[in-house]
Amino acid sequence: MAKVSRRARQERLVETLEREPFLTDEQLASRFDVSVQTIRLDRLALGIKELRERIKGVAESRYPHVRSLAPNEVFGDIVELDLGVHGLSIWRADEEHAFSRSQIVRGHYLFAQANSLAVAIVDADQALTARAVVKFMRSVQAGSYMIAHAHVKGERHGYIRVNVRTTVDQKDVFIADFLIMRKGLDMTGGSTGENRD
Amino acid sequence: MAKVSRRARQERLVETLEREPFLTDEQLASRFDVSVQTIRLDRLALGIKELRERIKGVAESRYPHVRSLAPNEVFGDIVELDLGVHGLSIWRADEEHAFSRSQIVRGHYLFAQANSLAVAIVDADQALTARAVVKFMRSVQAGSYMIAHAHVKGERHGYIRVNVRTTVDQKDVFIADFLIMRKGLDMTGGSTGENRD
Repeated sequence: MAKVSRRARQERLVETLEREPFLTDEQLASRFDVSVQTIRLDRLALGIKELRERIKGVAESRYPHVRSLAPNEVFGDIVELDLGVHGLSIWRADEEHAFSRSQIVRGHYLFAQANSLAVAIVDADQALTARAVVKFMRSVQAGSYMIAHAHVKGERHGYIRVNVRTTVDQKDVFIADFLIMRKGLDMTGGSTGENRD
Repeated sequence: MAKVSRRARQERLVETLEREPFLTDEQLASRFDVSVQTIRLDRLALGIKELRERIKGVAESRYPHVRSLAPNEVFGDIVELDLGVHGLSIWRADEEHAFSRSQIVRGHYLFAQANSLAVAIVDADQALTARAVVKFMRSVQAGSYMIAHAHVKGERHGYIRVNVRTTVDQKDVFIADFLIMRKGLDMTGGSTGENRD
């Protein structure tokens, strides 16, 4: 995109964030071919909150719909939710979630975000993960915003299949297939092939 | 086991813990058909530390052998390690790792323990998880000691297959098959089919 006047850029910024509210300042800077600092100044001038605050605002309004988990039990912020159909969550990985040497985010956090979302979109008061097949596609650096998209793929014999695809900057970093049980918990832990989350 | 004298019981306790050093007080109480309090008094009389301290002592001596992870990056305590062959780790799940309503330990922590161990037993300076197939067999209550056993099952085209079986009270709670890459990290995150942990 060629450089444009501040005014034109700010108008496009508003339009862009209406369509894609979860773009980072870095992504916006790249799209508009300006510095991150310029995007921040534009946001200040336009009264647009930083991404973390925008996510929080949207996420808080979505939680009441989640049935199978308490709000503080969702790992990541759920910003779209259509129970039994699909959901979208955003999570920012910080340094504490990464290896100190490489700053690469640890795999079990990607698993946690995806699994939380897979359970959250199930239309049931209780839902337990039975199985998962996961693929790590790319390493993720601390500081990245991870966007997880979950889709219910079908239900069979009481097991709901949920596919989750996690992206950073529009690139796949993690793909998971979960089998979730829609039923009450066996608190004694006596039966097989089922569990929590 | 029939009730025996304190002295006979304490002798058997020492023998038992030499063979199986990671039994909990609860497991010992059940084996000797006495109360947990009795086991604690026996341990005090015999100068045997509580399980958590015993694990710590063993675990600290094992960490220098781990090549692919820094000690503070292992989730769980590695108490047996034969690089490239097998390993055993112990992790105690506390309330903070469980759902508040049910006290059931969350799945991503079982994943984290198993994945850490699977990477730790790989005989390489860097090892990255590419894929995992996991099954949750039973729910686990907070306060449980989880024992994860990992075995290297083979290597093919640079991918090492590691099987991990996690038990609580000798019962399977979690089973995982990991495919781990033995190679340097692509820090740019540009290539596919690979990642961290």
